[in-house]
Amino acid sequence: MNTDFQLYLQTQKERIETVLSTLLTSKSARTDGLYAAMNYSLLAGGKRIRPILLLAALEVLGRPSSDYLSVGCAVECVHTYSLIHDDLPCMDNDDYRRGKLTCHKQFTPAIATLAGDALLTVAFELIATAPQLRPELRLELVRILAQAAGPDGMVGGQYIDVCASRENNTPESLQYMDAKKTGCLLTAPLVMAGVIAETDDAHMSALVQYGEAIGLLFQIVDDLLDEKGTLAEMGKQQGQDRKMGKATYVTLLGRDEAYRRAETQALRAQAILTAAGWGHTVLSQFPEYLLTRVK
Amino acid sequence: MNTDFQLYLQTQKERIETVLSTLLTSKSARTDGLYAAMNYSLLAGGKRIRPILLLAALEVLGRPSSDYLSVGCAVECVHTYSLIHDDLPCMDNDDYRRGKLTCHKQFTPAIATLAGDALLTVAFELIATAPQLRPELRLELVRILAQAAGPDGMVGGQYIDVCASRENNTPESLQYMDAKKTGCLLTAPLVMAGVIAETDDAHMSALVQYGEAIGLLFQIVDDLLDEKGTLAEMGKQQGQDRKMGKATYVTLLGRDEAYRRAETQALRAQAILTAAGWGHTVLSQFPEYLLTRVK
Repeated sequence: MNTDFQLYLQTQKERIETVLSTLLTSKSARTDGLYAAMNYSLLAGGKRIRPILLLAALEVLGRPSSDYLSVGCAVECVHTYSLIHDDLPCMDNDDYRRGKLTCHKQFTPAIATLAGDALLTVAFELIATAPQLRPELRLELVRILAQAAGPDGMVGGQYIDVCASRENNTPESLQYMDAKKTGCLLTAPLVMAGVIAETDDAHMSALVQYGEAIGLLFQIVDDLLDEKGTLAEMGKQQGQDRKMGKATYVTLLGRDEAYRRAETQALRAQAILTAAGWGHTVLSQFPEYLLTRVK
Repeated sequence: MNTDFQLYLQTQKERIETVLSTLLTSKSARTDGLYAAMNYSLLAGGKRIRPILLLAALEVLGRPSSDYLSVGCAVECVHTYSLIHDDLPCMDNDDYRRGKLTCHKQFTPAIATLAGDALLTVAFELIATAPQLRPELRLELVRILAQAAGPDGMVGGQYIDVCASRENNTPESLQYMDAKKTGCLLTAPLVMAGVIAETDDAHMSALVQYGEAIGLLFQIVDDLLDEKGTLAEMGKQQGQDRKMGKATYVTLLGRDEAYRRAETQALRAQAILTAAGWGHTVLSQFPEYLLTRVK
């Protein structure tokens, strides 16, 4: 991977994590433990890919990304809540996430449930109170985030995943689930950047299509990594999905064909950017990065 | 109870339930089961006291309440999500709610978790897209609802409840927990009505204080009913809180003193309304109703 882009990602991640680290502070000793659980998961690392996509798209659209860090943090709060609930014993029952105990193992399932609920709620408060944005734009961001995270978006995808362990067995049905479970919340920050920059319909459409392509790419690579990854590399146990009996792109298509499909999405993402006049911007570095990531 | 007021409550409940019954519709066969779980709990009855308080306050403030039914439904979605998560095996582990199986017993804990998540998310979408309201007012409603439902409000109260089973043993600490767990989401619709009507600071303050008084009243009566209620009357098993070893107003103060405190709050609520010039409005009927309710 391009060293400049590696540095770019690292710098953006640090900008986001600096804000995240002081974002949530308990206002009473009696809720300290709740905030501890929220911060435990929110500050457990991760690529911060969703807020970085927001910042990158804002920069491409000519907006000062530093004004909208809290909007990026809101998206990260929603992502973190979804991981906490996804890991619960009644869901995927995972003990490790990013090399650390999952929230319910470190605390309890009850506290993890509430910490997830609280992070989701706080996300909307963050957007409602985001500075530097006209009320109608903030409201549009609330709507986009709610739709991306809700029953026709991410939660809908999680529901399909919960129900479909062994029957969700065509690449098409898997792609439908992933578009909701993973794609919606990867596309949302790009669309949110478009709203903030008040971009035109054609460019908004390019952002949506680009988001869909890298969302699918992201999920295929996740499945490839889940097969070969180690706990040390991935921060979770390998082969978890296969163990759960869930279909993945790898079990349905084989490693080679799965990788080929990921490559196709990377090329598609690139073509969308080129057509939008963004072929040589920072956004054009993400497909290659997502294709070659090792965790 | 006043027959006119009984009719008023019934009429308002029907208005709310008419909207709720068509509010959430699955857009894909693959998410039908998620919507079924959301609607199962959302349409399971209940007093609808929170949206009715919104409508009542709007009427007192001279606004057409029919324009804002979706805002009331959003508050009810948040309330319903909190009940679903509160009933989960990892939380209170309740089998019955309002005389029906709880969401996780009717479906599964995984689906109930997701149905709760989805209802919370949908609530913010409903407010972001509420008609008849300027963007800055809708945004203020998002902020108020998020704060009331979040870690410094309702979820904070649930956390304190989860942690405090046996140590939360003074009336003052119980009151602090209930103010968050129950009070915040009872006060929110009153404040939201004040925002919609753009009422002045003095009247907004009266709405907050009135909400706090009836919130505390509501919770004390809940504890009294939990002691003496039957499954048929309450829709849940009696003595649940005592069985869980949780302190209640009844275990800490005894029935007579608990009832006296509820009466005190009813009088306080009435005095607040009188001082605000609302002594003879429909809002003044709620304290008596909440004091004498049997479920």
